[in-house]
Amino acid sequence: MDFRELEEKLVAFRDARGWGKYHTPKNLAVSAAVELGELLEHFQWESDGEILESVKDPAKKEAISDEIADVVIYLTLLAHELGIDIGEAVERKLGKNGEKYPLRT
Amino acid sequence: MDFRELEEKLVAFRDARGWGKYHTPKNLAVSAAVELGELLEHFQWESDGEILESVKDPAKKEAISDEIADVVIYLTLLAHELGIDIGEAVERKLGKNGEKYPLRT
Amino acid sequence: MDFRELEEKLVAFRDARGWGKYHTPKNLAVSAAVELGELLEHFQWESDGEILESVKDPAKKEAISDEIADVVIYLTLLAHELGIDIGEAVERKLGKNGEKYPLRT
Amino acid sequence: MDFRELEEKLVAFRDARGWGKYHTPKNLAVSAAVELGELLEHFQWESDGEILESVKDPAKKEAISDEIADVVIYLTLLAHELGIDIGEAVERKLGKNGEKYPLRT
Repeated sequence: MDFRELEEKLVAFRDARGWGKYHTPKNLAVSAAVELGELLEHFQWESDGEILESVKDPAKKEAISDEIADVVIYLTLLAHELGIDIGEAVERKLGKNGEKYPLRT
Repeated sequence: MDFRELEEKLVAFRDARGWGKYHTPKNLAVSAAVELGELLEHFQWESDGEILESVKDPAKKEAISDEIADVVIYLTLLAHELGIDIGEAVERKLGKNGEKYPLRT
Repeated sequence: MDFRELEEKLVAFRDARGWGKYHTPKNLAVSAAVELGELLEHFQWESDGEILESVKDPAKKEAISDEIADVVIYLTLLAHELGIDIGEAVERKLGKNGEKYPLRT
Repeated sequence: MDFRELEEKLVAFRDARGWGKYHTPKNLAVSAAVELGELLEHFQWESDGEILESVKDPAKKEAISDEIADVVIYLTLLAHELGIDIGEAVERKLGKNGEKYPLRT
């Protein structure tokens, strides 16, 4: 799946449920932050070693995957509302990062 | 660009710079939260109407795009460290959302 | 209650339970972020008018109060670990804000 | 300084500058999240040992103090808007924590 396909699916899903009116930029940005908080909760009291051990449990791994997915989903919906192509945004940022941190050869 | 391609590019970029040792799960999750904070800053004092007006300015729109991209980038790197396929994670979560909120027909 | 009293109570509480070893700066900062995410969840889909209406319900108001308290609690514990007097930190920041935004008379 | 004194100072400060109209619940909650993101930035790439070493530098310590203070300031203003006494909220939450995690004697 690429970003455009994801955007189309998400917009169709929410339009079919009449949720568009709640999807204001501020609500969607706050929603991404809420889900990121839930993601952080998985790492709250564990060291990096313990986290890497934890994700060997498929249920734990799926729970973390779900939180990561939720943040990506809300960011894609936010980008949609703002007329931002999230795939292009990521490509352009990668380009900027390459200029900011050139490889010393 | 799809999620797998993005993951490959990001991992190659950071490995070429020797940054892998800093990319622990906790550091990457915190980094995603830092970037999400920067995204929220754009919406801090504006109403939804003002935000939609603001993004008509290309410079503002690009600044917001960059913050969205940064969160996606760190989440992709986090997923990589945890052995999570972020594209699959999003697909599976969409499936769960469809079951949780079925269309009433 | 002032900030010093709060700090003393919190440190006594966690020391009596042997939790000190988990209270590293990073864990406490992440914990504050987790609780702030839970606070934001109360405002996720509501307008400001709806939020002000919601808090007329005592149960809702107490739930929001608890989340605000949790963030303050973790920040106080974080400040303690870093040797920061949180009351002094707030006083000094107020002073800086006064210099940065002087009253035009 | 106690929480009531802090609340009074903050409300007087913002009223003298005519900022009250921007201080809606959602804006203030988002502002707290923005400042918490800036706090997290200080811990983004450092281990706990490195953080404890870093705060020996007074400038670094003051920068972190400022971010902690900013979150407390916005939470106090948010509590004010919602009619929540933040000192009472913290006291009540401490009581709940004591009941939830009783000391085994």
